[in-house]
Amino acid sequence: MKLGVAYYPEHHRPEQWSADLALMKQAGIERIRIAEFAWSRLEPAEGDFRWEWLDRFVALAAEYGLAIILCTPTACPPIWLVEAYPEVIPVDDEGRRNVFGARQHRCYNTPAYLAYSLRIVEEMAVRYGGNPNVVAWQIDNEFGGEQKRCYCDNCRKAFQAYLKSVYPSIRELNERWGNFFWSLDYQRFDQIGPPLKYKADLWLKNSPSIEMEYSRFSSQAIVAFCREQAALIREHSPGRPVTTNRFPLNWGDNVHWPELVRDLDAAGMDLYSESLHEIGFYADFNDSLKPGRSWFMEYGPNVANLSDGMEQVRGRGCEWFTIFKFKPFPFGQEQSLQEMLTLSGEPTASYRSIADWAAGRDAAGAPAAGAASERFAFSGVGIVFHFESSWAYTISRWGRQITDRLHYPNYVIDVVYRSLFRPDRSHRIVTDPGGLEGMHTVVVPLHIVHDPALEQALLTFANGGGRVLVTSDLFQKNADNVYLTRMPAFYTEVFGMTSFCAEPKGADAVVRRAAYGSGEVVMLHKDAGLADWRAAAAEWGMAGAE
Amino acid sequence: MKLGVAYYPEHHRPEQWSADLALMKQAGIERIRIAEFAWSRLEPAEGDFRWEWLDRFVALAAEYGLAIILCTPTACPPIWLVEAYPEVIPVDDEGRRNVFGARQHRCYNTPAYLAYSLRIVEEMAVRYGGNPNVVAWQIDNEFGGEQKRCYCDNCRKAFQAYLKSVYPSIRELNERWGNFFWSLDYQRFDQIGPPLKYKADLWLKNSPSIEMEYSRFSSQAIVAFCREQAALIREHSPGRPVTTNRFPLNWGDNVHWPELVRDLDAAGMDLYSESLHEIGFYADFNDSLKPGRSWFMEYGPNVANLSDGMEQVRGRGCEWFTIFKFKPFPFGQEQSLQEMLTLSGEPTASYRSIADWAAGRDAAGAPAAGAASERFAFSGVGIVFHFESSWAYTISRWGRQITDRLHYPNYVIDVVYRSLFRPDRSHRIVTDPGGLEGMHTVVVPLHIVHDPALEQALLTFANGGGRVLVTSDLFQKNADNVYLTRMPAFYTEVFGMTSFCAEPKGADAVVRRAAYGSGEVVMLHKDAGLADWRAAAAEWGMAGAE
Amino acid sequence: MKLGVAYYPEHHRPEQWSADLALMKQAGIERIRIAEFAWSRLEPAEGDFRWEWLDRFVALAAEYGLAIILCTPTACPPIWLVEAYPEVIPVDDEGRRNVFGARQHRCYNTPAYLAYSLRIVEEMAVRYGGNPNVVAWQIDNEFGGEQKRCYCDNCRKAFQAYLKSVYPSIRELNERWGNFFWSLDYQRFDQIGPPLKYKADLWLKNSPSIEMEYSRFSSQAIVAFCREQAALIREHSPGRPVTTNRFPLNWGDNVHWPELVRDLDAAGMDLYSESLHEIGFYADFNDSLKPGRSWFMEYGPNVANLSDGMEQVRGRGCEWFTIFKFKPFPFGQEQSLQEMLTLSGEPTASYRSIADWAAGRDAAGAPAAGAASERFAFSGVGIVFHFESSWAYTISRWGRQITDRLHYPNYVIDVVYRSLFRPDRSHRIVTDPGGLEGMHTVVVPLHIVHDPALEQALLTFANGGGRVLVTSDLFQKNADNVYLTRMPAFYTEVFGMTSFCAEPKGADAVVRRAAYGSGEVVMLHKDAGLADWRAAAAEWGMAGAE
Repeated sequence: MKLGVAYYPEHHRPEQWSADLALMKQAGIERIRIAEFAWSRLEPAEGDFRWEWLDRFVALAAEYGLAIILCTPTACPPIWLVEAYPEVIPVDDEGRRNVFGARQHRCYNTPAYLAYSLRIVEEMAVRYGGNPNVVAWQIDNEFGGEQKRCYCDNCRKAFQAYLKSVYPSIRELNERWGNFFWSLDYQRFDQIGPPLKYKADLWLKNSPSIEMEYSRFSSQAIVAFCREQAALIREHSPGRPVTTNRFPLNWGDNVHWPELVRDLDAAGMDLYSESLHEIGFYADFNDSLKPGRSWFMEYGPNVANLSDGMEQVRGRGCEWFTIFKFKPFPFGQEQSLQEMLTLSGEPTASYRSIADWAAGRDAAGAPAAGAASERFAFSGVGIVFHFESSWAYTISRWGRQITDRLHYPNYVIDVVYRSLFRPDRSHRIVTDPGGLEGMHTVVVPLHIVHDPALEQALLTFANGGGRVLVTSDLFQKNADNVYLTRMPAFYTEVFGMTSFCAEPKGADAVVRRAAYGSGEVVMLHKDAGLADWRAAAAEWGMAGAE
Repeated sequence: MKLGVAYYPEHHRPEQWSADLALMKQAGIERIRIAEFAWSRLEPAEGDFRWEWLDRFVALAAEYGLAIILCTPTACPPIWLVEAYPEVIPVDDEGRRNVFGARQHRCYNTPAYLAYSLRIVEEMAVRYGGNPNVVAWQIDNEFGGEQKRCYCDNCRKAFQAYLKSVYPSIRELNERWGNFFWSLDYQRFDQIGPPLKYKADLWLKNSPSIEMEYSRFSSQAIVAFCREQAALIREHSPGRPVTTNRFPLNWGDNVHWPELVRDLDAAGMDLYSESLHEIGFYADFNDSLKPGRSWFMEYGPNVANLSDGMEQVRGRGCEWFTIFKFKPFPFGQEQSLQEMLTLSGEPTASYRSIADWAAGRDAAGAPAAGAASERFAFSGVGIVFHFESSWAYTISRWGRQITDRLHYPNYVIDVVYRSLFRPDRSHRIVTDPGGLEGMHTVVVPLHIVHDPALEQALLTFANGGGRVLVTSDLFQKNADNVYLTRMPAFYTEVFGMTSFCAEPKGADAVVRRAAYGSGEVVMLHKDAGLADWRAAAAEWGMAGAE
Repeated sequence: MKLGVAYYPEHHRPEQWSADLALMKQAGIERIRIAEFAWSRLEPAEGDFRWEWLDRFVALAAEYGLAIILCTPTACPPIWLVEAYPEVIPVDDEGRRNVFGARQHRCYNTPAYLAYSLRIVEEMAVRYGGNPNVVAWQIDNEFGGEQKRCYCDNCRKAFQAYLKSVYPSIRELNERWGNFFWSLDYQRFDQIGPPLKYKADLWLKNSPSIEMEYSRFSSQAIVAFCREQAALIREHSPGRPVTTNRFPLNWGDNVHWPELVRDLDAAGMDLYSESLHEIGFYADFNDSLKPGRSWFMEYGPNVANLSDGMEQVRGRGCEWFTIFKFKPFPFGQEQSLQEMLTLSGEPTASYRSIADWAAGRDAAGAPAAGAASERFAFSGVGIVFHFESSWAYTISRWGRQITDRLHYPNYVIDVVYRSLFRPDRSHRIVTDPGGLEGMHTVVVPLHIVHDPALEQALLTFANGGGRVLVTSDLFQKNADNVYLTRMPAFYTEVFGMTSFCAEPKGADAVVRRAAYGSGEVVMLHKDAGLADWRAAAAEWGMAGAE
């Protein structure tokens, strides 16, 4: 595992750069991640590009032997773009256009935003694509992070086009969504808008089917935009790996990351956590998405257990580990007193901890595991993570805050993965039904949306001797977010069940247990808690550390 | 007590109908409640009525010996109506027009909504009014349920007209509301709008008097609309009883149900509860509104104590008991896994429980009380429920959620009624001061609004030997939601009090106690809890079951 | 300490006035505060002034020997003004114009509001300025109380003008705010709007620098408006002291009261509290702002410990103590059952308590301290209260409710002052770095914004033998709400610190301790609790009563 760090040359006078670069180098850092929010300094007015400062910094970094991960600055459109095209700014779920003043103020379906974004990306790619010191690219920043959806007129039109591409007729859409319920039938696609919040005195919400489609649509817009940026960069910067920095799932899994990562060269993500099982989960997840090319683009150094966390990440196959950030921001919305340096520029405990780690020393100066150690052995356990099942849960829990509704990722991470967590073994996070080879056990929590390919794969896997652990909400809904009225084969063939489990959890969290072929299948109640999961894991000898 | 069930023929292929009807029949069900949300399938485009499917279903049900309660579908205006007349959709208390996509999206004061609603009601009444298998009507669905108020321009105009009809002059309105306070004087009626939310950093709210009038106005619009539907139905469907399905009070008592029910033939309501005292309260309330014609239009079968609940309802005089619903909805906003049948069409435990009940058997197959048993004896106790007092409390507690503010019904049900609840005795819920005959005790909780007729009735009742139990907030305000500055006669004559009780509750919840004529009057503190009420009830030998 | 009371002649028929005045007089009251919300009765239509009733009341009060504090009625613009100039009504942080219907519905930057306000103030000043029974003036009511900010177009323009007056160029503004962060650079001042709420699914907020400037700007608009009213009154009412009734800090310290009070003759404030240390704090604060001219304009009588609270206020130098209010309001948004009188006009316990106090009797009728006693001795301790530091904290805690965000005043009052509170000693609340003379100890809690003048004063004070107690967030930010990247002299000179304290609080809340000159300086952790503060106070012999 090698080390990088985020730095913002545009925040400092050029005279400051050399001192900072020297301190980075001394800490064992090899790469610097720059420019992700610098649009207003790279193009301070429309078409007025200012590359000089960036040229100088890239060159100066080279002098210090520090390579550059160059970021496209598209997460923060500048004021001139917003002023000329107010529709760049997203509209919220109450129909109000948001304001300029923070970040992520962009609608992924608005032509002006897309055009100006791709223009600066192309300009950047042309200028730096062949620079020998620019060794990798990060696209945008935390796509779909704080602004998960837009509800503007451009989205409206794009959503209607999306629906037309999916449904042969409005009649079929009505039937599949059950729009006869509550007389929600549409006559034409152009009557369908984004699912703005239905504001009532009590409980009312939109149809779960339109919400599921809007989740899919919103994710796909981001995937498409990322793909367009990647194509431009690849055209002008051959051989450099391209990635992005994904948001952690427990802050919102609204982007279908496997779809997005598929076209990138490395799986990049951001993580701020002190919880070792959570760090373990994300490190396994990242390496499962792109084996051998797991990159942490941001990792917060201000934690007590920094070296323990780094060891978890390293042992699970991380290739590049990038600290966010070298220096604290005195200004703006992310003020802090210290990062690797203090406000006044002095190295902090985390600076020293990172330098020690890079030098293969522990905090007492003795030799320690360090970057080059072996990675953890694979446990043989796969855990399926299914984005559309998570969306189905998010839609069904319409609390006030996004974080309240993230039942699925919180359950998978803090109950399921935690029950299986071992600090020296890695698990596989499965996002593709084709990926079950090499495992002895597959765990399928809260997979409420039916996936026929996965169903078949699980049957084959169990039949061939594998162990499968599912929850009682397995495969209850179709991709329209509608419950099935015919039982899936998994139920009838494995358990002989003729209806879904509708009972509340009893004292025994195991709902069903069956041999299947030469394998074994256990169904845990969907409300099973950490102790239940630990008991189930123990039965198969997979219990994690407490 | 006879059994009905809700069914949605428009949700199923006609080929499915027979199997479902047969299963209903086998369960002992006699009536099916249909069509309440079917507008978009009955009139998929303006004036394009499609009755064939409904004709066929009504006829098919007759073949199975199942009679029809036909519902008017006015709670869910279809997309074409909303598209042609956007003003059909209500405006919320921040002035934002709501969206199409759920239900109850209609303003009761908007001419287009009213006209198109009455048209389809009349078409339906003409077509089915004389059908021998259509034996009763339900108007609309849960009037004023999730959308309790609208604040649109049509409401504005209607509210101004309402105020003009109540107040001889704007000067009188100003004086009665105390508009000299905070300089809120109006010069003309047309300056008064619906009480949109006053959004402040701290605490500010609208005048309690305008809120009280808007509560009254909003309720009356619903009562008038219901009355118009009833008149059309009666014209074309003579002899069939007409009802509606009211919302439970603890989800919002914003409609003055006694006023609305007065012109209907049966008292119909919906109930979802596992709490026996709550079920008891509503069953008593329903029978008190229309003695002998208490209908439960919806009752959720997915409860552990279904037969206990049914016994409570039956013993308190319910005539028709209608389960909601026969089959679960796989789609839409009310998805569930099972009702009387599962998603895949198998009978559930509740199906069997209902069938046993209809057959006069208990769950073990032994003969049980069943439909034809005697009803519970009347306790001789009346409990006054006063809608305008409840509104006064709702207005004075301006929390975020409606349910937080429903202090009055929650107190009456979960404290007062509960303290008096006996599983084999019924009480009278009094909503008319003229209805005190036949009782030995009248309980008057939280009746903060002064009602001179009730005051006189209570004095007469006590004088003649009756026992009266009131709370310390009795008759403190007038109908304008303004405190009285002269003491009502009840205070001076019964207790000799010269000012209202303003003290916090002490150890003894009894604030005053007096003989009056040959009767007795006790005043409990308005903050008395369940234990206090139980103690007071015990003193008069009325203590309920714990 | 002398007594006043608030009364609303416009709420009563003139025939009632005499009886009320007689009861006031009997209670020992000397002044009546009137007319603060009476605009709609003084000018019921534009330019149609009606002074007769007020003339009569002022004259009648004189007959009873009761002097008048006359209030300007500008907190409640009447309907005709709002109707003619809708822009009088403030716009909230989501861009929605508020409604007429409560109070404080005025934008302090809207010309029409200012013009009509100043006109009625001048009319009032001309008419009553020389009236011998009008002995003092109160301007407006609780400036900036429930409506702390407006975000309208007039504010937008005024804010841009304000910024232009402060920043020589947009370039300097960008650099000082760090607008290169997140590409928030502006090109022109006219691109900057009020910091409307940035609505995101997670966490996003506006820049702390624009928020700080908007806090300053919003406060200054109120200060300017107050100053204009004061000038008009002074022109026409020479010799009468002018004050206003400030909001308590823990309900919002958004107005920089020392700036506003500087130009008034007395420090007037409102207080509703049963907490003796809180009452003590405000009484000390008020007397510190205008020594000898501390006026309590509102004090709620409905508290159990009224006479204890009055003794705290008296002992800390209050000159005029005005009860709010003589009679309860039966109508409107502030309904209550009793104040000094009940709704039906009978004296309450608080009436008797106040009358006893005025007569120098305790509740048992025995001679008691009363109005004329000595004031408490000064402790020698000063506590610095810094509004801009409080704003910095409010901005950094962007919870939902204003009250959640008021970390600074709550900490200063309920932790710091409380740890030092003694019921018989007064402290000085310091709002001016020039005011440290006469003290032996200065306490500087949560002073996160660097004030070079205070820094110098503290060094001088300590050097000369004073004791200084600071918290670990001292002087960390500059006036732009940006962290300092060079250490202030206080840190380097006193403690030799080269970076700010960034550690969490440990077992010992004392972070640093140093001798300086002949004095001593202690730094407590910014998260020190009440027990930590009590321990620190005890060490210097200043511990308060528990």
